[in-house]
Amino acid sequence: MRNISRAELREASVEQLNGICERLREEIFRTVSANGGHLSSNLGAVELTVALHRVFNFPHDKLVFDVGHQCYTHKLLSDRAGLFHTLRKEGGISGFPKRNESPYDCYGAGHAGTAISAALGIAKARDLRKENFSVIALVGDGSFQNGLIFEALNSLAILKTNILIILNDNGMSISPTEGATQEILVDIKEGTHDAKLFEQFGLKYIGGVNGNEFESLLPALEEAKSCLEKGSVLLHVSTRKGLGYPFSENAPTETHGFGPKPIAHTEYPNVLGEELIRLAEQDRRVVVITAAMTDNLGLRPFFERFPERAFDVGICEEHACVLAAALAAGGMRPYFAIYSTFLQRAFDEIIHDVCGQNLPVTFCIDHAGITGPDGETHQGVFDLSYLSFIPNLTVGIPKNTGELRGMLRMGMTMDGPLAIRYPRLGEDGPVTAVQKGKFEILHSTISDIIVFAAGERCIKLARDIRESLRGEVDFTLVNARFLRPLDWELLASRKEKYVVTLEDNAAIGGLGDAIARFYRGSGRILRCFGYADAFIPHGEPESLEEKYGLSREAIAACLREFHARG
Amino acid sequence: MRNISRAELREASVEQLNGICERLREEIFRTVSANGGHLSSNLGAVELTVALHRVFNFPHDKLVFDVGHQCYTHKLLSDRAGLFHTLRKEGGISGFPKRNESPYDCYGAGHAGTAISAALGIAKARDLRKENFSVIALVGDGSFQNGLIFEALNSLAILKTNILIILNDNGMSISPTEGATQEILVDIKEGTHDAKLFEQFGLKYIGGVNGNEFESLLPALEEAKSCLEKGSVLLHVSTRKGLGYPFSENAPTETHGFGPKPIAHTEYPNVLGEELIRLAEQDRRVVVITAAMTDNLGLRPFFERFPERAFDVGICEEHACVLAAALAAGGMRPYFAIYSTFLQRAFDEIIHDVCGQNLPVTFCIDHAGITGPDGETHQGVFDLSYLSFIPNLTVGIPKNTGELRGMLRMGMTMDGPLAIRYPRLGEDGPVTAVQKGKFEILHSTISDIIVFAAGERCIKLARDIRESLRGEVDFTLVNARFLRPLDWELLASRKEKYVVTLEDNAAIGGLGDAIARFYRGSGRILRCFGYADAFIPHGEPESLEEKYGLSREAIAACLREFHARG
Repeated sequence: MRNISRAELREASVEQLNGICERLREEIFRTVSANGGHLSSNLGAVELTVALHRVFNFPHDKLVFDVGHQCYTHKLLSDRAGLFHTLRKEGGISGFPKRNESPYDCYGAGHAGTAISAALGIAKARDLRKENFSVIALVGDGSFQNGLIFEALNSLAILKTNILIILNDNGMSISPTEGATQEILVDIKEGTHDAKLFEQFGLKYIGGVNGNEFESLLPALEEAKSCLEKGSVLLHVSTRKGLGYPFSENAPTETHGFGPKPIAHTEYPNVLGEELIRLAEQDRRVVVITAAMTDNLGLRPFFERFPERAFDVGICEEHACVLAAALAAGGMRPYFAIYSTFLQRAFDEIIHDVCGQNLPVTFCIDHAGITGPDGETHQGVFDLSYLSFIPNLTVGIPKNTGELRGMLRMGMTMDGPLAIRYPRLGEDGPVTAVQKGKFEILHSTISDIIVFAAGERCIKLARDIRESLRGEVDFTLVNARFLRPLDWELLASRKEKYVVTLEDNAAIGGLGDAIARFYRGSGRILRCFGYADAFIPHGEPESLEEKYGLSREAIAACLREFHARG
Repeated sequence: MRNISRAELREASVEQLNGICERLREEIFRTVSANGGHLSSNLGAVELTVALHRVFNFPHDKLVFDVGHQCYTHKLLSDRAGLFHTLRKEGGISGFPKRNESPYDCYGAGHAGTAISAALGIAKARDLRKENFSVIALVGDGSFQNGLIFEALNSLAILKTNILIILNDNGMSISPTEGATQEILVDIKEGTHDAKLFEQFGLKYIGGVNGNEFESLLPALEEAKSCLEKGSVLLHVSTRKGLGYPFSENAPTETHGFGPKPIAHTEYPNVLGEELIRLAEQDRRVVVITAAMTDNLGLRPFFERFPERAFDVGICEEHACVLAAALAAGGMRPYFAIYSTFLQRAFDEIIHDVCGQNLPVTFCIDHAGITGPDGETHQGVFDLSYLSFIPNLTVGIPKNTGELRGMLRMGMTMDGPLAIRYPRLGEDGPVTAVQKGKFEILHSTISDIIVFAAGERCIKLARDIRESLRGEVDFTLVNARFLRPLDWELLASRKEKYVVTLEDNAAIGGLGDAIARFYRGSGRILRCFGYADAFIPHGEPESLEEKYGLSREAIAACLREFHARG
């Protein structure tokens, strides 16, 4: 698609703008069909983004996206149309705003709730530097539940600066938005409630805007722009998620984000859903908590089967974690399912509420490891590091879905917290009873080398390398399925001089460091493979794994070297 | 003080209740004067807590404290009167609610904003188990700014359970509360604003209650209790922080929390405040951000000198962190000052907003290490662990206030983020220019042993031990003042066979692990001293340090052993 200039947008008639939107939708649909990505949210925001690029002057003015997954039209309109076919491809443009990609991306994102705080910071810096431009935060209604948004709204009065907040309200988070905030938004839209909620926070409210119709959108944006001179403004815009493609309009949850290829392997989320239903059938204490990820985590069947024991609290990871802790304090057995990277939001609550009180919450941590095309903000490569030092916590790393089942069952018998981290895709395996802190020897041989591998990807990697070195080097292979506690007995009993560890996590602070700590002073020679000390961008998982620290060649070379040293 | 039974409270006249309150205040004042602790917030909440213990039946009913620092009267009324003199003493009762201390403490706390989520979880568990009791969350107005509170309020509609939220409004966080929420609360109290904010969230609002007068308080609590059968209730109670002791009433900020002894050493907070003023005078880009800790962090003089460049955003650590990132993105040089344990709340934002975008934010992390009498939730023993694996981040550990100054100055020249962690109390030192990632050799000798110590306490410990081993064992002593990056050049150049590390942080994931990682495969023998894998309770810092991993004897024994092995 060719670039479209701001001059062109400014001169276009509404009919011409609609024509531009049609072309943008086609481009987005074509690219997402080929490359994967966020479809329905981007389709819904086309007119809104076009109108913003017409009314405001980017990059002089600053557009801050919340989450950022709805930025495709913005990228197409900001000198990246020619690169759009590379969306989410390694070396191509990111599916999220990134400061180092374009001056039009003034602030990056990937997680929810940051846009208003970020807009306030940029606006305050502008004021202090006596500069003059508009700052706009574009926030979906799903993010409006997030506590960070509320903290930022509370700060408007303190910071005394002017920003435009656009609430892009499609009634959907990833799943349909629920909760008090959403009910208030619906009431406001339907006119059964006035907009006091926002005015109470010192915001001028402009509502009743159809965000898919330029006739409604353009005057509203012009009005907002002129009000901005006097104070901060909230522009409440209704859009239709998935607009323009009937399948996407009718199935916005399914088309929120999707990959380019059909999924071949058994998925961990399906197994999670199945197994939690099984546990809930056996024990009435089982409850499930998620933060707006019911479908992605495989929990829809559980929510349908046990609606009274299933809680989707919206994009509120911190609240979800405290709620889980308190349900456990109240005698229940909560399973809190979440992506690895989003659990970072509840880090303090893991420590302060769950582990500090030694409560039997089971964390089901999906999307661990390199997840690929979503890039830096979605890689699950820090969880073993940030869970490694929390007292009372058990951390399990299943080698397949069968071990996931075993660990989920183990959660029922724990007298303290358990975290289980696993990738999205994986192989099926027989249900495996797992004992806390016990490793599994997968291959035993007489050798000076022992390899500890954690999780499905690394065990597969170790097996592949063993295969490729057949007849040359052999080693004992251990499924190191617990980071905490380690299998001290097994570790102490092994006599191998050379120890290699493999983990699908940052090399700093994870399994390698833990095993090295155990062997400290023992005279063993260790080499620990994990990810580099870098933010890992978007790309193909296999390629990124190779490039960022789990290189087959490097691991094989290490094994050969150890073998040669003998 | 003797225990006071619920029967006694129920039978007492208002006059007698006031008499009880007088005795409670005396006991609190006497104990806090001797042991340190939170004075003004507890003095303000005496009548409210007495009324709660009269109207409700604890521990059958459940009282959840937010932060928990205002729980003294509750402890005095729940079978712990006889132990109250041990408040905050090692082995004595905690200054915060703790589940393992009493069945009356149904949920622990220490950080802000968790109470409503916790009350909801306990209430939901009650419903699912078909039990019958009231759940009450007691929340200060300072906490009401925290995003977690908002997330929980949003969840009321989803969870469909009934709780009583008591908003204890004294117009103060630690410092006076500011921001939109506070303005709304003031308007509601003064009757110039209706209580729609709460009703919008589905809460029955009961207000206009003087929380220091039983005539107002008791009927309001009875009304709230009866309304609770139909839905959740918010009871808005005004109290006077510090009530009963004129000095405390007039200086609630100074008497929010204090230690039993006058402070002898130079404090890091004072130096922080001084140095930031110096930097701000030289460079207009310097801005300072804090989350409701202006005074405790030594920033009051800065706020007075540069009000337009100083932002106290209330108890909103996440927002504070994103704001800092965005101010940096806007060309400023933000210094975000915060306690070690509270920074855990902004863990995701450190990664996602600051380090992920490589923005030059300087984190000034106070209260690092064991802080003592506040206990588990206030020990700053995880920061080196949770900062160790974040790409782009530089982490400095000054050995005295002079090095803190040097590192703060270094922050102005950084092209990425910097975290500086330091204890509260410490020794003055000459201003020291510090180069990123460069250690300092403090004592050089010909020996097979080298000791890397980080931070003032550990360097002092190493020096003391060296002194005690004089004539027996000597070692080279290095000020390991950067966790990230390590001084690779120095590390590579050292030839000592035995390496000892000392850090005032959890032994898992900190400096010891980092140096061990560097020396992996080198054949050196390492012993790393840091804190045990446990939550460290309240007590005397020196004693806790000894007990939880930095034992002088153990370190000396290790050095002797290494010396003997030669």
